[in-house]
Amino acid sequence: MAKGLLVVISGFSGVGKGTVIQMVLDALPNLRFSVSCTTRAPRPGETDGVNYYFLSESEFEEKIAKGEFVEYTRTFTNYYGTLRSEIDGPVAAGVDILMELNVVGAANIKKLYPYCVTVFVCPPSYEALKARLVGRGTESEESLRRRLNEIEAESRSIPYYDYAVTNVVAKECADKIVGIINSEHLRTSRADDLDIFHPED
Amino acid sequence: MAKGLLVVISGFSGVGKGTVIQMVLDALPNLRFSVSCTTRAPRPGETDGVNYYFLSESEFEEKIAKGEFVEYTRTFTNYYGTLRSEIDGPVAAGVDILMELNVVGAANIKKLYPYCVTVFVCPPSYEALKARLVGRGTESEESLRRRLNEIEAESRSIPYYDYAVTNVVAKECADKIVGIINSEHLRTSRADDLDIFHPED
Repeated sequence: MAKGLLVVISGFSGVGKGTVIQMVLDALPNLRFSVSCTTRAPRPGETDGVNYYFLSESEFEEKIAKGEFVEYTRTFTNYYGTLRSEIDGPVAAGVDILMELNVVGAANIKKLYPYCVTVFVCPPSYEALKARLVGRGTESEESLRRRLNEIEAESRSIPYYDYAVTNVVAKECADKIVGIINSEHLRTSRADDLDIFHPED
Repeated sequence: MAKGLLVVISGFSGVGKGTVIQMVLDALPNLRFSVSCTTRAPRPGETDGVNYYFLSESEFEEKIAKGEFVEYTRTFTNYYGTLRSEIDGPVAAGVDILMELNVVGAANIKKLYPYCVTVFVCPPSYEALKARLVGRGTESEESLRRRLNEIEAESRSIPYYDYAVTNVVAKECADKIVGIINSEHLRTSRADDLDIFHPED
């Protein structure tokens, strides 16, 4: 049996990744969302074990010590990490895994799993994204400036992704990602030797 | 403007490539079939300038001498060649080009155009293909044996193709190839620098 696909999705804050990812998951029954760990506080509507495993700093550091993460990153204020148990077992069993990671996490995973498929979700334009962030009205001027700087910095990583898709209409963007995942399954580099006459089984 | 995609399709004789290719062309308005040159005689239903440019041996050799081919191969009895004019201009103008080539021609094109996309169309099984060839009843025993040997030999090239798709139902096989072409357009490696926020335009 062919191994599962490891799909990494990144995108700027505010680009609408969450909606797109849910649509992709709904479209592909063999695709499972890999839940990451974080020490940041849950946002309204977020559920432990669904969006993230929300851990205390000491809990997170215990898992680091035990080698439970395939990769983790530390931002200015928080840890983010990917549990080995969320990836290796399912992928070996033929399940496709979708991970949402920032550009640092995505780069870490690409080094560890060179055959993973990385997709960056882009806004229709930088101006549209800025307008969307400003329009929310929830950001302080300082916070907005920080986000825009982050977007600028993150955009330099886009060329390292395998694919870039623009999110104009969420459903169309999701369809493109579904198409990418289906096509990647047809790559001869992912077929077992015995699959030569029916490689997508 | 992004360059056009160069798509190469190969597959065993009798696998139903022709039907699949026509469906792919019908689905993608920006995809144009590249007509190859050959010195073999037209088969019933084949039209000069549509299926092939049918040339005499001396006409073919004149084009070789003039450097009009990007690649050509000589089988036991015939020449097959790809005209430079069928590829370079259209691709530069942003048109996607689809070529049907045997395994030798496909390998030649992959060397010359490393970013081309190569797809091998497989039968559901070797047995199914053999049954289909036998069932036709049009082949002498000698000819059938030669075809099966050729299939055996060609199958060794499949792992060198980017993708392998199985033709069980022609429409589904065509949909997969359409999906591959659409996804390949979303690769960051094919985007222009300026396209960074809307790479598929």
